[in-house]
Amino acid sequence: MEKSSKPEIYLALLHYPVVNKRGKLIASAVTNLDLHDMARAARTYGVQAFYVVTPLSDQKELVEKIAAHWTAGVGGEINPARKNALNLIRIKDTMEEVVSEIESFGSGRPGVVVTSARKSEESVGFPLMREKLRDGAPHVLCFGTAWGLTDEFIAEADYLLEPVMGNSDYNHLSVRSAASIILDRLVGRTEDDL
Amino acid sequence: MEKSSKPEIYLALLHYPVVNKRGKLIASAVTNLDLHDMARAARTYGVQAFYVVTPLSDQKELVEKIAAHWTAGVGGEINPARKNALNLIRIKDTMEEVVSEIESFGSGRPGVVVTSARKSEESVGFPLMREKLRDGAPHVLCFGTAWGLTDEFIAEADYLLEPVMGNSDYNHLSVRSAASIILDRLVGRTEDDL
Repeated sequence: MEKSSKPEIYLALLHYPVVNKRGKLIASAVTNLDLHDMARAARTYGVQAFYVVTPLSDQKELVEKIAAHWTAGVGGEINPARKNALNLIRIKDTMEEVVSEIESFGSGRPGVVVTSARKSEESVGFPLMREKLRDGAPHVLCFGTAWGLTDEFIAEADYLLEPVMGNSDYNHLSVRSAASIILDRLVGRTEDDL
Repeated sequence: MEKSSKPEIYLALLHYPVVNKRGKLIASAVTNLDLHDMARAARTYGVQAFYVVTPLSDQKELVEKIAAHWTAGVGGEINPARKNALNLIRIKDTMEEVVSEIESFGSGRPGVVVTSARKSEESVGFPLMREKLRDGAPHVLCFGTAWGLTDEFIAEADYLLEPVMGNSDYNHLSVRSAASIILDRLVGRTEDDL
């Protein structure tokens, strides 16, 4: 298949199924700045849609309210660039719904790529995943909130991306920082593209 | 001078002198998540200290209170990794004080590198700056809050780093995202380092 410099890529921020500090399954609360920072990074890196996944109705309402303020409300008039980012947000109950919707866009079932701060022998490195994303098929990059995605969720995904390491042994980045760096590494422009 | 894979690098987040939406000089308010996200990214990328610059005493008190909660208070007991990041924070009134303190550490006067979302003919590209940071001299990376650093501040700096572009024309990243990506591009590990 012909290589494309603009991969068909989606972002998903999951508030369920994730774990808390003690490794227990929870549905986490939505954080306002996650939506803003990740939507802005998504727009910067040509992401097609930014899925916010939560099964909790009050949390879905909160996301709708925040997004609407900037896309339909006064926020968008004051700050059009923010509107242009937050209108990438789509709200879904489950990851299955995300996959079905992307499939309905017509380019096939998306490859599900999970990110994690934990090391695993099954991890795929950044250079290989960058190549993979250019094969023409859609892919969705999944980020967990709280203390991360459940082992079961990770095991069912198509790919587990290697953790972001800086130049130290410390790897406790915020999900906002990790998503930004991962997008830059996977779909950022290189000198070859210019 | 011998090349070092661990450059002596500092981060500075400036709340003054910055501009508002209309380009007017202001002192901006401190944002809690800027401190957390940038301290965590700083620790991940081996940054020596993270300077939070504001001349406003109530804002300095706020930064002290937030940092102390996580470094001396109950926060650090609950989350030692967060303590390990937020103890990089140093509070200063002005950039001059930041430069003087770094100079007092004994490796010489730091090179002042400013970041900006605006394009300029004088910008230095990422690959060149990455090399520069490895020449053994200390450098401080400056990030502006609000609508960015003043033209005067930028003009006085030693280097103006090129803006982060993704793979679109949109460049309205949060300062949290921009700082994370810039650290990864400038001091992140490459395969050569491993």
